Amino acid sequence: MKAHGLNPRIRKSPYFQSTLKYGATEFHPYNGMWMPVGYDTPINEYWNTVERAGLWDVGVQRCIEISGPDAERFMSMLTPRDISNIKVGQCRYIVMTNQEGGVLNDPVMMRMAEDKFWLSTADSDMYLWTKGVACYSGHDVIIETPAVYPLQIQGPRSHLIVSALFGDDVLDLKYYDWMKADIHGIDVIISRTGYSSEIGFEIYILGYERGDELYETIMQAGKPFELSPGSPNRIRRIEGGVLDYGSDILVDNNPLELSMERLIDFNKPDFIGKTALQKIRDEGVTRKMVGVFMDG
Amino acid sequence: MKAHGLNPRIRKSPYFQSTLKYGATEFHPYNGMWMPVGYDTPINEYWNTVERAGLWDVGVQRCIEISGPDAERFMSMLTPRDISNIKVGQCRYIVMTNQEGGVLNDPVMMRMAEDKFWLSTADSDMYLWTKGVACYSGHDVIIETPAVYPLQIQGPRSHLIVSALFGDDVLDLKYYDWMKADIHGIDVIISRTGYSSEIGFEIYILGYERGDELYETIMQAGKPFELSPGSPNRIRRIEGGVLDYGSDILVDNNPLELSMERLIDFNKPDFIGKTALQKIRDEGVTRKMVGVFMDG
Repeated sequence: MKAHGLNPRIRKSPYFQSTLKYGATEFHPYNGMWMPVGYDTPINEYWNTVERAGLWDVGVQRCIEISGPDAERFMSMLTPRDISNIKVGQCRYIVMTNQEGGVLNDPVMMRMAEDKFWLSTADSDMYLWTKGVACYSGHDVIIETPAVYPLQIQGPRSHLIVSALFGDDVLDLKYYDWMKADIHGIDVIISRTGYSSEIGFEIYILGYERGDELYETIMQAGKPFELSPGSPNRIRRIEGGVLDYGSDILVDNNPLELSMERLIDFNKPDFIGKTALQKIRDEGVTRKMVGVFMDG
Repeated sequence: MKAHGLNPRIRKSPYFQSTLKYGATEFHPYNGMWMPVGYDTPINEYWNTVERAGLWDVGVQRCIEISGPDAERFMSMLTPRDISNIKVGQCRYIVMTNQEGGVLNDPVMMRMAEDKFWLSTADSDMYLWTKGVACYSGHDVIIETPAVYPLQIQGPRSHLIVSALFGDDVLDLKYYDWMKADIHGIDVIISRTGYSSEIGFEIYILGYERGDELYETIMQAGKPFELSPGSPNRIRRIEGGVLDYGSDILVDNNPLELSMERLIDFNKPDFIGKTALQKIRDEGVTRKMVGVFMDG
């Protein structure tokens, strides 16, 4: 038994050919795209990330763009988190909940303009959700899936590599800030975010066509720093307490039992799931996700 | 390069062990579940279906249940098709559209009770869409994903097999009708529907646990009729003009360019996408999907 090759119903990332070239041997379906998940052994990929730096194709974090005059009001309805203080140039980790307070996704939200937000999503289709909510919510918004695809550079040498590529401005980026940049005329958005507990950056290409060119440029610039191709490392993320939507978190979970109180602002006038989450809070959560320490 | 085995993020159908036992060698991700797509060669599977009968695990047609006092009004908003005349015990092929008239899915809708509908969906997450729409639509509905998973028996001998299993009542089922039945205490819903242009039935198990028992029971009953394990056959469906959401149809397509006029009732007071589709109709479609005849 096997999964059917790389079934063409599932989309390929703009970096696909590069990931093959650099040794990707296994792919997972994620958000309707193939995510490369294996190059080296997970243990070698762990040490690459922890001691040097890894370059990960995470184009699967399919981006949802919400824009228009009511973009902030609409965005605020979609998440329990207070987003009123998020400025253009900043990102936030948020949860999105349904009417029962169940977690639908835990994307990184990026404020791209006063009236424009991006959601860099985990593995569930937020286009369908947000577009559905907008049918009757009465907000003047446009919801699209722009052709922007992130790479992640994660690890203690990642700042050396991105500054070699994009200049020293990138070193001024605060944690969860983003900036525009370009290289060889390829426009990108760079954010100080990522799916590891190491220092790291995400580089979103604007457009699909020049993905392999960008990937190659990064690999060349990373050579002196021993940059390795890799993928979101399960050992490091579990060690770092980084949750994974689709395995640790399901729609049956609510943010309170996941200890995400900091992502909920009950003082907001309204958000989807507020009534349900208030009830859960008042009655007390019945189960709680906790970390474990493992020896060995 | 290969897809990563049978990645556990993607769910398995209740018939999974049986499909392995009967020779499934390849699986596709579809609606967040693994769909067995290869047993024999596609050409042998074609002749099995066209000359005898095939048993297909299509548990991936993830079922959405819409129930409650406003279920009919809500369901009617979700599709351009007139559903007011659909009685309990009947099914209909429908399209579901977004605000721009783009096709989100083309499920089989089943009326399970006056106030309860099932959607047996193609490959896009209608839980997220319908649940999103319900946030602000003002309808009193409950939206769930019940544990019901269809098998299809398709082919000219399919009626002989289902009547051997469930009795002669099943022969009275009209095209696109459904009925309740049970075998060895396993409750099922049987419908005269399917993804071939042959005579065929779908059998929805109610519950996950006894899937393999049901599959085995059907295979045994099918022996005298040379029932073969199989999967939705691409040759037969293309030959029969049966469209495939995710390959033939994308969200960029509207029902008018797909020649689905029969699935649109512009006289309905309202449905999602009505304004957009009226505009497309009035201005004329700019492209049209057509069939081709192939010789050889």
